[in-house]
Amino acid sequence: MPWQTRASRVVYENRWISVREDDVVRPDGGAGIYGVVTVRHTAVFVVPVTDAGEVVLVRMFRYTTGTESIEIPAGGTDGEPPLEAAQRELREETGLEADSWRDLGPITSLNGVADAPGRVFLAQRLRPSGAASAMEEEGITEVITVPWERAMAMVGSGEITDGETIAPLLRAAIALGKLG
Amino acid sequence: MPWQTRASRVVYENRWISVREDDVVRPDGGAGIYGVVTVRHTAVFVVPVTDAGEVVLVRMFRYTTGTESIEIPAGGTDGEPPLEAAQRELREETGLEADSWRDLGPITSLNGVADAPGRVFLAQRLRPSGAASAMEEEGITEVITVPWERAMAMVGSGEITDGETIAPLLRAAIALGKLG
Repeated sequence: MPWQTRASRVVYENRWISVREDDVVRPDGGAGIYGVVTVRHTAVFVVPVTDAGEVVLVRMFRYTTGTESIEIPAGGTDGEPPLEAAQRELREETGLEADSWRDLGPITSLNGVADAPGRVFLAQRLRPSGAASAMEEEGITEVITVPWERAMAMVGSGEITDGETIAPLLRAAIALGKLG
Repeated sequence: MPWQTRASRVVYENRWISVREDDVVRPDGGAGIYGVVTVRHTAVFVVPVTDAGEVVLVRMFRYTTGTESIEIPAGGTDGEPPLEAAQRELREETGLEADSWRDLGPITSLNGVADAPGRVFLAQRLRPSGAASAMEEEGITEVITVPWERAMAMVGSGEITDGETIAPLLRAAIALGKLG
């Protein structure tokens, strides 16, 4: 490993994240500090695609950025396996279940600052499954189902800014053979 | 705004990030805390595409995750406008300059935890521009130029895990008309 850690101290912790400051020697030999944010639980990101090829998105308010955001269903695992967490998040945020699940692989977020592992899933053969129980808790105001092309236009225009929505959509596009 | 902030205190700061813990009232009315990581400077992400349609990537070691990662050139603005930062990062990390730049819009990273704004750029008409001066400092071990299809295969297989590489590649795919 080209970095060396000389010392490490936890500077903040809560239920979801831990922040530490390390004394490091950089790859070029220089000494410095590195603040690392560890997200405690793996996140799951679900790209739900209907039989008609539409994408199911949620409109929500993000406390961190202070803005509204249009995103795919996602959340943290609560210690359960990632697929189970993905199924739970889809159900809680959209009221949907899926009969077909594909694991589209690992993803990391904000890796210049954070150790934030995630897993991407493609959910197909969707069907209603009662109420979306966590909409209010998570600040979701609307579940919107848009044609694939419209989802791509929303990414291209900047209407969708969430990196953890855009990246899973590329994994899904590749899995669905949508790249010419 | 569906969230309310009752109190806010900074719990950690360094040159690059600030971490605060807020007492909040969630959208569902429940009280709790929210730890928010603010990345001080906007990040820039550059998708460099050669005249032959190849993508230029860097292989580097990420201290945060403790793993090697294959990524597009990227970095933080040092207070300069995002386009200038993008041009500098491309030059420093790959030794390339580009005669054509397109702003592919805003992106946020890890927005469940962080306020981490970024900007995506497409760089084309590439030409050599002296040495890649920041390779050692940033732990970059290799600059690799791969056909577009190979880059997509690396995303699809999970060989590329960096969300801030994958998301800009979708913006680039859309801008380049590569989505069928």
